[in-house]
Amino acid sequence: MHREMTDALQSPRIDSERLRRLLDGVNSFGRSMVTGGFNRPAFSEADMAVRRWFADQMTESGLAVRRDGAGNLFGRLGSKAGPAIMIGSHLDTVRDGGAFDGALGVCVALESVRAIHEAGLEPGIPIEVVATSDEEGRFGGMLGSQAIAGQIDHAWIDKAADADGLKLSQAMIAHGLDPARIIQAARPPGSIRAFLELHVEQGPILEASGKSIGIVESVSGICHWQVTLTGRANHSGTTPMDMRSDAFAGLAAISAMIPTIIRDAGGEQSRVTIGKVHLVPDHPHTIPGKAVFNLIVRDVDNEIMRALTIRFRDLIAETSRKHRLEASIDEMGWLAPVSLDAAIASDIETEAKRLGLAYMRMPSGAGHDAQTMQAVCPSALIFVPSRAGISHAPEEWTDWADIENGARLYLAALCRLAGMAGA
Amino acid sequence: MHREMTDALQSPRIDSERLRRLLDGVNSFGRSMVTGGFNRPAFSEADMAVRRWFADQMTESGLAVRRDGAGNLFGRLGSKAGPAIMIGSHLDTVRDGGAFDGALGVCVALESVRAIHEAGLEPGIPIEVVATSDEEGRFGGMLGSQAIAGQIDHAWIDKAADADGLKLSQAMIAHGLDPARIIQAARPPGSIRAFLELHVEQGPILEASGKSIGIVESVSGICHWQVTLTGRANHSGTTPMDMRSDAFAGLAAISAMIPTIIRDAGGEQSRVTIGKVHLVPDHPHTIPGKAVFNLIVRDVDNEIMRALTIRFRDLIAETSRKHRLEASIDEMGWLAPVSLDAAIASDIETEAKRLGLAYMRMPSGAGHDAQTMQAVCPSALIFVPSRAGISHAPEEWTDWADIENGARLYLAALCRLAGMAGA
Repeated sequence: MHREMTDALQSPRIDSERLRRLLDGVNSFGRSMVTGGFNRPAFSEADMAVRRWFADQMTESGLAVRRDGAGNLFGRLGSKAGPAIMIGSHLDTVRDGGAFDGALGVCVALESVRAIHEAGLEPGIPIEVVATSDEEGRFGGMLGSQAIAGQIDHAWIDKAADADGLKLSQAMIAHGLDPARIIQAARPPGSIRAFLELHVEQGPILEASGKSIGIVESVSGICHWQVTLTGRANHSGTTPMDMRSDAFAGLAAISAMIPTIIRDAGGEQSRVTIGKVHLVPDHPHTIPGKAVFNLIVRDVDNEIMRALTIRFRDLIAETSRKHRLEASIDEMGWLAPVSLDAAIASDIETEAKRLGLAYMRMPSGAGHDAQTMQAVCPSALIFVPSRAGISHAPEEWTDWADIENGARLYLAALCRLAGMAGA
Repeated sequence: MHREMTDALQSPRIDSERLRRLLDGVNSFGRSMVTGGFNRPAFSEADMAVRRWFADQMTESGLAVRRDGAGNLFGRLGSKAGPAIMIGSHLDTVRDGGAFDGALGVCVALESVRAIHEAGLEPGIPIEVVATSDEEGRFGGMLGSQAIAGQIDHAWIDKAADADGLKLSQAMIAHGLDPARIIQAARPPGSIRAFLELHVEQGPILEASGKSIGIVESVSGICHWQVTLTGRANHSGTTPMDMRSDAFAGLAAISAMIPTIIRDAGGEQSRVTIGKVHLVPDHPHTIPGKAVFNLIVRDVDNEIMRALTIRFRDLIAETSRKHRLEASIDEMGWLAPVSLDAAIASDIETEAKRLGLAYMRMPSGAGHDAQTMQAVCPSALIFVPSRAGISHAPEEWTDWADIENGARLYLAALCRLAGMAGA
């Protein structure tokens, strides 16, 4: 017993059971008994309630709690003044999301601070646990981290609305929040020392590689096109094959060329997806007169993204000519890839080696708060595996052994950043 | 004047203006001021109203009007007893259909009888004008002609419902009609001498060939599959291309092979269409986990249809393996091709030559009452051109000169069938 106490005083340790209870506590909010998924969309009742509950958890852990104008929730350990190390993730979910996406990163952050506190350590650099608001983009962005990074302006706020047309401002006002105060959430340069996030991979790479840990080097950029092919709706029986302007045939020809285009102009990290398709009139016996589809091109290299999109633009034009279609491309967004901080990633790697963890360096295909925070401060992102790569679904799962490994590494990296002895 | 009277007494002539007024009268029912299309779905208020109005038109023209249990409307000229020549088409439309599909054939039939009546001729064989019910298949078949052909049974009636789930029986009862009486509409073999229909082509072939008239030799069969490809929905950014089970990628690969399969196993009359596609979850950033689509294979040759479907079954299986998908094929229907009566077609051709009309023999890619009637009696179908091949849309159009040519030929063929001097 004495030895354990001594250890505790010297090196903070993750309390696995306490972490599990914290995560279960978060996931008692917004759970659907029908789907088994979690529903805490940003600024919903469940989202507000989980953040009130989490604020209490932080207060009880001795942290100084505050909220900013964007709804971000902070719990600070250490000196009230001076730049802090910010650690955390988000508590909001997509509709019927999983138990880990976001929530795990916030819980690991608080558990790490609890471990440091329990070890009787006082960080030389203050640490701020953060639960960002609307990371899942209900209102069209990553509101919390973008507000911190000073990337939100009044025009954006006025326009922001969810898929049902509910305005961000209405949603905030309904909870007594003032949308005009979002702007005030911006942190001046130098006011944050670093940002550290742990998140589930949401992809199959770690599991397939048998690794517990991914050290993220970069986050893919996203090019999002909505493409409309217009042909002529006609009777499927009376229109000879060579007299058709079949919008779906054009779309299929474009889609079938994706592997070729990636082979010729892409790289190992290129991801091209057609996920949403709308045909008009969408009737079995009618040749589609219109096909509207969304093309998502992702890569960690902006130049490769450019090369791919040039090829897709050519392919769409050429296929449209061949199939007698009109094509229009609406670029819904271009998010450039982001390189995370190389020095912190290197420190994390050192700690992973020291702890004997099976890790790999990797890019992130999904967007995360860390990529936004990189604009304000050096930022780092640690992945833990997702079973079968499944996320944004009730089936989302990460083995507890991997979570423990991830939390240990996270705590060690945090201690290193804060100038304390590692875990 | 005297000469005209003499002519009139000898050879019946189409009164183009009277025909136009009749068609305008029909199209005063169910017209949408928003789309310009016509909405007379079977057993709707507009459908019932147009048939009451048309019944009055037939009564005023001296025909003996009656309705059968399936809602078919008849107007009989000549002897009350004995097998008649049946002529006509349908008055119901698809949603926002055109002014000519069906309506023109019924109007040309009545105009022909009016012309015969006006010419003072008494047909040796009775003539029955018919407006069939639900040719457009709102309730899943060609109710009117199938009932006449004795192809409707109680089980079918019990099951028949429209796309919104409204049952045929409910729709009929709402208008005071007894669905149990549909069965009684069946005509015994030998009770109909012949069936003659004029219809718009609903395809581009006549226009492209510069012909006024199509003499239809056969009607394409239809194989209708609903195919479900099941993969795994996953994040478009985090899932490497080679670890995906992308249901849409599979569908696109299948669709892109359609021209190759037709080239290898099809013929000139083969038509293959994917008109309806439903992705799950249908979200831009998610790899489709499921694709449900309808594949329609048509040909005038049953053996070619069989060969094509065998190839498609293989292709779907092979593509599913390659894309790591599960495939299931649900055959929604197999309608064999129908050969119409060769002797009547030959008579029509003789009349077309005599009248100096530009005609061609052709198959029909669309289904018509004539193909169902062929099961009961020798049946024939005359096409007039559709501008740009457009049908089932407000833009449906046939030039009046072509209508006049078609009506003249129709009347001549009818007179020949009825043993009277031609027009």
